[in-house]
Amino acid sequence: MVERLALVGTGLIGASIGLAAKRAGATRVIGFDPDERALAAAGERGAVDGGAGSLAEALTGSDLAVVAVPVSSLAAQVAATLAAGDASCTVTDVGSTKTAVCAAASGSPRFVGGHPVSGSEARGPQHARADLFEGATWFLTPLAATEPARYRVVHGFVAALGATPVAVDPATHDRLVALTSHLPHALANVLVNQAGATKVGGHEPLASAGGSLRDMTRIAGANPRIWVDIFLENAEALRLSLAEHRRRLEELERALAESDAGYLARWIGEAAGNRRVMLAEAYGEPADLHRLRVHVPDRPGVLAGITLALGAERINIEDFELRHVSPERGGTLTLLVVGEDTARRAAAVLDAQGYGVEVSLAAGER
Amino acid sequence: MVERLALVGTGLIGASIGLAAKRAGATRVIGFDPDERALAAAGERGAVDGGAGSLAEALTGSDLAVVAVPVSSLAAQVAATLAAGDASCTVTDVGSTKTAVCAAASGSPRFVGGHPVSGSEARGPQHARADLFEGATWFLTPLAATEPARYRVVHGFVAALGATPVAVDPATHDRLVALTSHLPHALANVLVNQAGATKVGGHEPLASAGGSLRDMTRIAGANPRIWVDIFLENAEALRLSLAEHRRRLEELERALAESDAGYLARWIGEAAGNRRVMLAEAYGEPADLHRLRVHVPDRPGVLAGITLALGAERINIEDFELRHVSPERGGTLTLLVVGEDTARRAAAVLDAQGYGVEVSLAAGER
Repeated sequence: MVERLALVGTGLIGASIGLAAKRAGATRVIGFDPDERALAAAGERGAVDGGAGSLAEALTGSDLAVVAVPVSSLAAQVAATLAAGDASCTVTDVGSTKTAVCAAASGSPRFVGGHPVSGSEARGPQHARADLFEGATWFLTPLAATEPARYRVVHGFVAALGATPVAVDPATHDRLVALTSHLPHALANVLVNQAGATKVGGHEPLASAGGSLRDMTRIAGANPRIWVDIFLENAEALRLSLAEHRRRLEELERALAESDAGYLARWIGEAAGNRRVMLAEAYGEPADLHRLRVHVPDRPGVLAGITLALGAERINIEDFELRHVSPERGGTLTLLVVGEDTARRAAAVLDAQGYGVEVSLAAGER
Repeated sequence: MVERLALVGTGLIGASIGLAAKRAGATRVIGFDPDERALAAAGERGAVDGGAGSLAEALTGSDLAVVAVPVSSLAAQVAATLAAGDASCTVTDVGSTKTAVCAAASGSPRFVGGHPVSGSEARGPQHARADLFEGATWFLTPLAATEPARYRVVHGFVAALGATPVAVDPATHDRLVALTSHLPHALANVLVNQAGATKVGGHEPLASAGGSLRDMTRIAGANPRIWVDIFLENAEALRLSLAEHRRRLEELERALAESDAGYLARWIGEAAGNRRVMLAEAYGEPADLHRLRVHVPDRPGVLAGITLALGAERINIEDFELRHVSPERGGTLTLLVVGEDTARRAAAVLDAQGYGVEVSLAAGER
């Protein structure tokens, strides 16, 4: 576990990370925020042990810096944090888009992009919660240049906060969240504005809204200071999702025009199935830990390649270690995963990448 | 309050009406359902006092019959109920579309269409609840042919169950629910199917869904046996809503393509405002009752015209009475509404229809 943590930005997410990290055993959490009130509120909430007067001061002696600022200033703040911190300080962020910020880190071996899918609509450090990330997906975007030890630090940190780290490349991440987060937000806004703009036979539709419209617009009107930037930052991927959505609406309109009951029944059945998949627990029984060992070459990007492939298969790495590395002979990568089935799937992924895998039970190891 | 009630169909809605009616003072609730298990379950739940072996048996001696069967058999069942019941039995229904069923009643003076917006996704009489309609909008669709006394029976009944009766004409009703219920259902299905159909860079989007996607698809995959018929029954109005929705998505895509931050900020702000309107309590303080008196001609459709105009303004009539009617001199219509502001708005509506209105405080009257 990271012991000395710097929080660059102490809003809701930054302060929640502080609380969760202290619960997980961090001994020193220093906050830095140009907004003095946010920093003071994070202190009152117990999310930071102290505030720093400058970025450099916050980073001094820290093992990990988490940049938790709005998307609009994220790339610049990550670049500044990388420049201000020394070689011992790993840097990550929590931005909800990843392409631009990873580009801004311009191949630094110390940077690992991150994005916790927390789903909170609240704002400000006063709403911070230590359990905000419990069970949540936390995307990590290791790059070819990322040092394995840095990825290990961030991966272990995120898991210690209760989240499930999922490795993904930045462009894939942005297309994923366009579909699972930005499209739902956009539809919620469009839906409530459509209902609000239309008077039907003199009636105000919003006045007779039932539970379905209320549910589907819970996220409508979310903080424009944050969301305008998110939409713009991920505009291209979101536009593709919107266009695909319109195509699917036209298909439905066609079925309605033709009174195609078969289509509608299949379509609803498919939706019920997809909804079940979404809610299903993604993982098997805990506490049966398996160890996978592979021999890997000493080459940049090897670890990123493996973690991304496992992430794509939604295989959760509990822990990993890279040892005995030499430029000539490479090294041994050890991965721990939970469940026999997961171990088998992970082995298949590694096998497909051309690695010889050795799998064994590792009960009680961690 | 209706004392003797017949429930034609004892599924979730029928049985919940039975429970709510008994709580409100109904002394005899008879159920009829061709599905013997549903009827037995409604009996076990305490929603009916007894089951009838035929429709005619259920209607004998009943003041009000509520037809609560699926949309596909609704029109036929309402026609059969009107034919089987005698002149003393008022008939209403709970179907979620109204144009077809009102046409099937073909101008019967004893029929008042209805639609409680209950929002429950549960099924079957075993999930029936007495409080299902508490605070819910309950649309009523009086027609020109509807006898004022019949409307009064259904209006009072619905209010006694805890719902807010809102008068609306059938076509307007169907366009309203297309926008506030059927469009949200359709979007939830399309959204979860879009996320389920697309693999992004090898990742399964449903596996990393956050709270926003889960919220927005809560109603996805709802009972196809019911929803295929609802979508088909209201296909035309729903298609118009879908087309308008697509138009709004294109507008958003245009703003994203042009990085139009001003548009996005206004659009989110508008959504926040509309969301507030939707959640705001529609009514003022209770318990200050106002009486409005108007002189009306003795002509078919007069009451429907007045209640529809008040419904369009979302003015809740607490009670009403039509007295001293003669073909030559007409009669006096007395309406009770809550709140000075509501009384003023109601008076304005009546004034606009050419009626001279007399408004007075009626505290303690009911």
